Amino acid sequence: MKVAIDSCDTLKFERYSDNTLPDLACKSIINLLNKTNIDRNEIDGLLISSCSNENYLSNIVSEMINLNPKISTNVENLCNSGTSAIFLAYSLITTGICNAIIVAGVEKHNSPGNKLVWDITRGDFNLPIHWASLFAKNHFRNFKTTEDDLAMISEKNHNNANKNPNALFYKKKFNFMDIINSKRIVEPLKLLDCCYPCEGSCSLLMISERFAKKSEIPIWIKGISQNNQGASFSNVSYDLSSIISTKIASKDAFKQAKLKPTDIDIAEVHDAFTIFEIMAYEDIGFVEKGKGSTFIKQNAIHFNTRGGLLGCGHPIGATGIDQTNEITIQLQEKSPKLRQKRDCKRGLIHNMAAAGTSSTIIILQK
Amino acid sequence: MKVAIDSCDTLKFERYSDNTLPDLACKSIINLLNKTNIDRNEIDGLLISSCSNENYLSNIVSEMINLNPKISTNVENLCNSGTSAIFLAYSLITTGICNAIIVAGVEKHNSPGNKLVWDITRGDFNLPIHWASLFAKNHFRNFKTTEDDLAMISEKNHNNANKNPNALFYKKKFNFMDIINSKRIVEPLKLLDCCYPCEGSCSLLMISERFAKKSEIPIWIKGISQNNQGASFSNVSYDLSSIISTKIASKDAFKQAKLKPTDIDIAEVHDAFTIFEIMAYEDIGFVEKGKGSTFIKQNAIHFNTRGGLLGCGHPIGATGIDQTNEITIQLQEKSPKLRQKRDCKRGLIHNMAAAGTSSTIIILQK
Repeated sequence: MKVAIDSCDTLKFERYSDNTLPDLACKSIINLLNKTNIDRNEIDGLLISSCSNENYLSNIVSEMINLNPKISTNVENLCNSGTSAIFLAYSLITTGICNAIIVAGVEKHNSPGNKLVWDITRGDFNLPIHWASLFAKNHFRNFKTTEDDLAMISEKNHNNANKNPNALFYKKKFNFMDIINSKRIVEPLKLLDCCYPCEGSCSLLMISERFAKKSEIPIWIKGISQNNQGASFSNVSYDLSSIISTKIASKDAFKQAKLKPTDIDIAEVHDAFTIFEIMAYEDIGFVEKGKGSTFIKQNAIHFNTRGGLLGCGHPIGATGIDQTNEITIQLQEKSPKLRQKRDCKRGLIHNMAAAGTSSTIIILQK
Repeated sequence: MKVAIDSCDTLKFERYSDNTLPDLACKSIINLLNKTNIDRNEIDGLLISSCSNENYLSNIVSEMINLNPKISTNVENLCNSGTSAIFLAYSLITTGICNAIIVAGVEKHNSPGNKLVWDITRGDFNLPIHWASLFAKNHFRNFKTTEDDLAMISEKNHNNANKNPNALFYKKKFNFMDIINSKRIVEPLKLLDCCYPCEGSCSLLMISERFAKKSEIPIWIKGISQNNQGASFSNVSYDLSSIISTKIASKDAFKQAKLKPTDIDIAEVHDAFTIFEIMAYEDIGFVEKGKGSTFIKQNAIHFNTRGGLLGCGHPIGATGIDQTNEITIQLQEKSPKLRQKRDCKRGLIHNMAAAGTSSTIIILQK
């Protein structure tokens, strides 16, 4: 059974709000239900992606918005939670167990998951920026990437966020020199090389082929793949040049989709730190290893049009859903005018968690 | 693609141990890997069921025991977590995404989930025993069920636990009068009508038809169904006589399996409180509504041979896995001698969460 995304919704990402976690989830799902032709009674699954400590959240939310899903459960996989939940929903629809599943990602500003306390391979250097800095230094040394290159990524994504009213940094203008001059955190990374943890809630509706005739513009999942390499930084890479899980997941997803990187028109890649967008260009296969920084100025493929994690903020369990939402509305040509890219037929989502120990790739097609 | 359970493992349930949550999970999974003919490299999924607050647990555990699963994620659905994870694994194997998935349930003694703070329909009566007491009183009033009937359930399950070295109450002998005389908690329920939250870890390996030839005694999943009715007690029942989610999930699972209740030889039903075992007899369809208490002494079907939640203790996210393990080893004729029942071909697992707002039914066959 083929699987499509029917519709999606994103609430404005914020540093903090008075909404509870269930409130946030419900608000986005109610918007979503108003956007689809699928009837509320036909929704037979609800998966909630969150790193919060709220138990039984999917059932609480089901009740608050009067859903009666056959499958209802919470999914947690750190930054990769949202795309993991989408993968499980894909599987439930492919088997025919469900026909219409809402996948919602929701996070409060104080959700855990920002400090990787289990990773003893890193000693006291257990904040994500510590490994990002190692990757950046390696790229500088081996491939002549520079702080200017990183700043160009940040500038591009912050510019894109200025066309996205839901982004945390919407209407916050940062130019190239602002980024270069921002506070140095861990060499060579500065404040504006880093994403900002925040609150967020978004949701999407996945449907079976059988329901697709009711869908205005179904966006089909052509490839979906995940790869896991444990949880510690010592597993992520042989030589700090590549993220193994991203390379394997990409290869598998392209194989399933019978497509290649040049077939992609638009992509959301995981830019928790600027260096990761450059490495993603290479590890997904858009450009050969070491040439990532020369690829920043290309125009053939649109990257992180919603603003990426850098411009949108990073509500951990919600990020993978919002990345998928962006590709969906771009392919549906439902993006706000300023942000809408023309003639996009195929898009890709790249999400990862904890130093790149796990990655998920999703390939969508109109 | 058909799905079978290949093997399973349970650690001894304890009130408290010095093991960390990942330690507990690893110990059971290492035992499991020693029991199966499936190679460690062929394991392509790891789902961990837990109500704990430990993020990224499945990837941490993967690394600790050197697994490299394609799909790795945590699943939380309160008391129904374990059976929810089994359902997701079933779906991943049915689609062909995975061939061999380990589903592990693990809980520390201090995991959250014992107090249902979100359920405003119950005011301050938000402990599970409050709703169990309402169900019991209703059964007494309408169907002449008595405190003696409840005590017989507790006596049977504690006797069974005495044949289960992994049970929390192994070698704790409680006779009928001990139960009747145990401390009264909320009328009409006494201490020994209630299960005891505890630590636990168990795991099972699910495999595809393709891998079944490597399996010593594959136990097939013939039916699996879940039903959700929100999160509040006010949704559980029309009249306090039945648990709606159990009735619907049972009907669906029997339909899928093309079987009826009389085809079942052995069952694990969710006895968090004694009254629930009696209601499960009725709601699953083993006996007509109101006759549950007359069914306690029947011998045709074996119930809660591991000791149930009453005798084993209730490590929330692990319980659904251990219920499934019991039916698996009984059908495989691998139970300890004292506990092994003869000629069992088909078994059923009934698990539920939060006042019965959600239920899962699994039907297994040799």
